[in-house]
Amino acid sequence: MYVLHYAPDNASLIVRLVLLELDAAHRTSLVDRRVRAQDGPEYRRLNPNGLIPALETPDGALFETGAILLWLSERHGALAPQPGDAARGDFLKWLFFVSNTLHADTRLLFYPERHAGQSADVAAFRDAARNRVASHLGLVEAMAATRPGWFSPDAPSVLTLYVCCLVRWLALYPVETAGWLDLGRYPALGAVAAAMEQRPSALQASLIEGLGATIFTQPSYACPTEGSAT
Amino acid sequence: MYVLHYAPDNASLIVRLVLLELDAAHRTSLVDRRVRAQDGPEYRRLNPNGLIPALETPDGALFETGAILLWLSERHGALAPQPGDAARGDFLKWLFFVSNTLHADTRLLFYPERHAGQSADVAAFRDAARNRVASHLGLVEAMAATRPGWFSPDAPSVLTLYVCCLVRWLALYPVETAGWLDLGRYPALGAVAAAMEQRPSALQASLIEGLGATIFTQPSYACPTEGSAT
Repeated sequence: MYVLHYAPDNASLIVRLVLLELDAAHRTSLVDRRVRAQDGPEYRRLNPNGLIPALETPDGALFETGAILLWLSERHGALAPQPGDAARGDFLKWLFFVSNTLHADTRLLFYPERHAGQSADVAAFRDAARNRVASHLGLVEAMAATRPGWFSPDAPSVLTLYVCCLVRWLALYPVETAGWLDLGRYPALGAVAAAMEQRPSALQASLIEGLGATIFTQPSYACPTEGSAT
Repeated sequence: MYVLHYAPDNASLIVRLVLLELDAAHRTSLVDRRVRAQDGPEYRRLNPNGLIPALETPDGALFETGAILLWLSERHGALAPQPGDAARGDFLKWLFFVSNTLHADTRLLFYPERHAGQSADVAAFRDAARNRVASHLGLVEAMAATRPGWFSPDAPSVLTLYVCCLVRWLALYPVETAGWLDLGRYPALGAVAAAMEQRPSALQASLIEGLGATIFTQPSYACPTEGSAT
């Protein structure tokens, strides 16, 4: 039985969706961001980096969303081209790109104060981050338009779920400039997101975390029954 | 036969070291940074993101250093705990952390102008990035001090080589503040780096790319026989 340490509508949502898709036995444990529980010694023992999520497994505590997704896909032999598959390299290169480029720049856009330095012009910093994110999404759109089997909504991979969640958050945050993301500019991605949000995993996760009816294409802010998204 | 698209002392060095450790048949193709060949249409067909390296394989062109390393380790069944191994999750979480946190912040430190926005205080931005990198290195040091088998210099993993190269570059760049990194603060990492630079793979790579005698612990700027590091 896995234990997912989560906060509503945090990166842990991606792992929750994957656990639901896998029908993997798990329970969840709230990391209460209102008291910054992610900075406490108990949570830091799970993830010394203090980021959400962490996943307790029979092989110990895992952190890093991309690592957890990849590990679960290997462990369950599902939701990704497996080692030895001719599509494995293609899948891995886009997984790393999303993790260390698209997701990393999304974090710069959401948390400029952590990165820009004290005296920075936060608006200019955010503009630069937004332009990079838009460019990265263009590359993901071009990939999605080639319809690789491992990105399709009919047989999604962990990466499909990962990208859909990023699209959700980019529409909602930063709150000051919410609405800048026009999913219409990324039609292949938009079609995948629209199909993915109708899957039982998305509907179930939405009910648990209070995310509304169209969690990827027309997202609304979380109204969770416990904890806080921010 | 693999084809590694490289520039001297760029991230492609990590892949070269891995190919040498694996004794994998390969040839290399210079990406000439002096004419920004990485931005040309030919290279963008290999990596639409325009970053070095790219690796041509029987399964198509791969990019993203972390993805290439992981794919090679799976393909050759070496240099990493394989899927199913109890250490796999531990290895993956640190691989992703290094890729999307340590390496990503290293890029912010090296290329602030791409991230800080037009009107930014570059010195303050770099200070913030340097502090984060030092903190990340502290986490990697704590990991290294537990001596996981897959990080040891006697039986290194792709991640050992990856971290050693980052340590090298952090000592050399940015040129304006070179020397800020005190490897003595990270004794476990320093010991691994000292052992790794004596391996045949490091000696051979150094000769090919012109990197000097102690490429990880006392690095000097590259004097390559072809191409340019920057």
